[in-house]
Amino acid sequence: MFEAAELGRKLDKDTYKTEVENLRVELLELQQELLSADFPVILLISGVDGAGKGEMVNLLHEWMDPRHLETSAFDAPTDEESERPYFWRYWRALPPKGKLGIHFSSWYSDPIAERLAGEMSANDQEAYLSRVNTLEKMLVDDGALIIKIWLHLGKKQYRKRIKSLAGDPKTAWRVTQKNLDNIKVYDKFRKVAEETLRETSTGHAPWIIVEGYDHRYRSLTVGRLLRDMIRKRLEVDPKTLASPAVDWSAKKDSTTLLDFVDLKKSLEKKEYKEQLADYQARLNELARKAHKKKVSTVMALEGWDAAGKGGMIRRMIHALDARHYRVIPVAAPTDEEKARHYLWRFWRHLQRAGHMTIFDRTWYGRVLVERIEGFARTDEWIRAYQEINEFEEELTEHGIVLLKYWLHIDKDEQLARFKAREQISYKQHKITDEDYRNREKWDEYAQAVADMVERTSTPQAPWYIIEGNDKRYARVRALQILCERLEKAL
Amino acid sequence: MFEAAELGRKLDKDTYKTEVENLRVELLELQQELLSADFPVILLISGVDGAGKGEMVNLLHEWMDPRHLETSAFDAPTDEESERPYFWRYWRALPPKGKLGIHFSSWYSDPIAERLAGEMSANDQEAYLSRVNTLEKMLVDDGALIIKIWLHLGKKQYRKRIKSLAGDPKTAWRVTQKNLDNIKVYDKFRKVAEETLRETSTGHAPWIIVEGYDHRYRSLTVGRLLRDMIRKRLEVDPKTLASPAVDWSAKKDSTTLLDFVDLKKSLEKKEYKEQLADYQARLNELARKAHKKKVSTVMALEGWDAAGKGGMIRRMIHALDARHYRVIPVAAPTDEEKARHYLWRFWRHLQRAGHMTIFDRTWYGRVLVERIEGFARTDEWIRAYQEINEFEEELTEHGIVLLKYWLHIDKDEQLARFKAREQISYKQHKITDEDYRNREKWDEYAQAVADMVERTSTPQAPWYIIEGNDKRYARVRALQILCERLEKAL
Repeated sequence: MFEAAELGRKLDKDTYKTEVENLRVELLELQQELLSADFPVILLISGVDGAGKGEMVNLLHEWMDPRHLETSAFDAPTDEESERPYFWRYWRALPPKGKLGIHFSSWYSDPIAERLAGEMSANDQEAYLSRVNTLEKMLVDDGALIIKIWLHLGKKQYRKRIKSLAGDPKTAWRVTQKNLDNIKVYDKFRKVAEETLRETSTGHAPWIIVEGYDHRYRSLTVGRLLRDMIRKRLEVDPKTLASPAVDWSAKKDSTTLLDFVDLKKSLEKKEYKEQLADYQARLNELARKAHKKKVSTVMALEGWDAAGKGGMIRRMIHALDARHYRVIPVAAPTDEEKARHYLWRFWRHLQRAGHMTIFDRTWYGRVLVERIEGFARTDEWIRAYQEINEFEEELTEHGIVLLKYWLHIDKDEQLARFKAREQISYKQHKITDEDYRNREKWDEYAQAVADMVERTSTPQAPWYIIEGNDKRYARVRALQILCERLEKAL
Repeated sequence: MFEAAELGRKLDKDTYKTEVENLRVELLELQQELLSADFPVILLISGVDGAGKGEMVNLLHEWMDPRHLETSAFDAPTDEESERPYFWRYWRALPPKGKLGIHFSSWYSDPIAERLAGEMSANDQEAYLSRVNTLEKMLVDDGALIIKIWLHLGKKQYRKRIKSLAGDPKTAWRVTQKNLDNIKVYDKFRKVAEETLRETSTGHAPWIIVEGYDHRYRSLTVGRLLRDMIRKRLEVDPKTLASPAVDWSAKKDSTTLLDFVDLKKSLEKKEYKEQLADYQARLNELARKAHKKKVSTVMALEGWDAAGKGGMIRRMIHALDARHYRVIPVAAPTDEEKARHYLWRFWRHLQRAGHMTIFDRTWYGRVLVERIEGFARTDEWIRAYQEINEFEEELTEHGIVLLKYWLHIDKDEQLARFKAREQISYKQHKITDEDYRNREKWDEYAQAVADMVERTSTPQAPWYIIEGNDKRYARVRALQILCERLEKAL
């Protein structure tokens, strides 16, 4: 795989100078054009130590307008990072549309280093790399241009480079003991790197291997690649990016799982009061234990309008310490959120270890309201099922207890609640014309809910359909599930 | 000061229940109204341990709509927090307009605890509290409503409460050894708390002391205070908030300090090349040392349009490692930024320890473009001088090297550069009609620059006026200053 990159191509100084001058102008023009484009560019610079990764990144800052570059280097995770799922630090560093984000030492550094050190099994590596592929696909599907550059050095070149850096007092500081040791394990490193690149060179984000020995050849090659790939991407008609439309409408169940929900379930007031108090006491104890053990919980609350999410949240937090949870109301995205992948705005709200994050409406908006109202294209919301499963897997793998509730009521009950709300001063704002319009699409939403539950119920993150016509029953049931899940996890 | 709060007032259960029901409705209505208001509410809950701070915060979450509350609890700083100036963590937690942010253990916790433990001198305490007063004034001036509640317990009440908590198996877990020890130092604690409250009970953000022993009395009192203060603030006509207009226009210097800048300073090409290379080599070494020693640099770049900020940045970063700096272009604020104090968007960009943050245009926009174009009211931009000085003091006290450059050219030179830019494809976008419009206000801007330099040049953060008609001279001069300042700091 790396053979071609060990040819040792060279460029003379004058050719280089002229070419760079032209290239710079082109890059600056493209950067300008990119500013108003509808996608971000993510450039990953990886490769062999000493192959010029740092120089390359610095050079791009000089050639281009550094104000529109966002370079992120990832060393050891900070404590705020290590308390969240592994990819949180990469999500938070994603550039917005119109910008070029350079990831120096990216999601590829750890697996290569750990595999080399024998700290990662072949199976773990495969699982990790498949996660990387999914992440990249998700971003590319959303429009991002991902450019992955591997700067290569052959074994002899590597030895020569490290020795020459170590021999020059001006650069000796850059050479670590690890660099010297790595000369001995070069062959193994090469094998691991080759495996990694092979597994992750995909159609949507292929690796490009550039020989790193001659700095002029390397710099000009990378600069030109960047230019050509950005230019090509800018020329793409956004409309053609959508996958061919799927005739999803063909699939219409006359009955959905919601038809089998027993909405007659209810609780007497006395029983309710007792059970509520019992579960709240239990939850209080469990939540304290979870905080102490740094076990986090994410609760995803979905349901029909007026299904009683607010009242349910209130009964839960009664048992919780306000310092240890946060309720995130999901409304229209801010402009900073709109400039990124739709999952970014949920990633950013994940709380620190031992905390509970309660989402009042969630990432499932993509396959519910955005699907029904046409805010997302068909290929976008169909793709979202897998993206959401991936997201949730990352949460649960990190040890987060993830609960997903669909709070269910029937159409008559909803109408009765709308009418009741209109009578209460501080609830009037909750009922708008939109709520009545949504009601008209009840069947479409029911189908969307059925599809959602079918496609995103996983063993780690099952959906719980809460029978909600009786508020008392629903609240106790939600608390009961929460307690049981926490008990299991602790 | 605390005497009145030790009366031990009590409320019977029935009165409490009825009153709470009414209060809840009012609070929910107010919260709804607040959502579209143009200011945030910051509620600080402090007080004696065991006086019910936690219960109070939890109760507010139950009474109000928790989706529009943002509760922040501040324990030991995370590493990302401790690498920034002290107040960074509080700035990042400030609620946006329309929301209620509850700060549990706020900027008051540390000084009281440290003073009690003998870790803070009286002088340090005074300096710290004056910083707190300035912060609160800054937020109030910007429209924020700050409510500071101190829940109090007398000495006997405190002993009784701690003993009763410790005696009940259900609450014993809440009592720490420190709580028990504190019984002995109650008198000293009271003295420190009294001092602290006296120093920080200001007209714009007074302390309100509430007796904390009886939970019903305490809860209802705090709830009513919150209701009354939010209601009162909502009734204020925003126009009346502005301080009486100052007749600043009276102050007009016929000559300003800019008239004394020697714009003839220049460098020959050969000399330039040599000096540039020398300073870049020096800077490279210094920056590496700074990164190793975790010394951060903040560079504030201001100057006339076309003064050459971009070219100057490029010459600097040539010597830097792209992983260790970030260039922040200051353009129009995002909607998340608009919803907060104007300094928030600069605080959020401060990089971690050992990094350089280069602001291309800065917080000085408030007293330059916002002043001249009328985007800020007179009282707002006049106030800004002090706010900026405070901000910068917090940076330099944290050990950050702060450099402020005004890149100066004259009017003819600017015109020549506009014309030249119009000839270069990738620079054309830089010249717009607005640039020509700004030129017409040259004298007004010159006065604003003179005022700015006069009012914000401090020993720790002086302004450097860079003579910029000759680009070569300007670049070398900027590098020279940067090197000298870094040398001194390292």
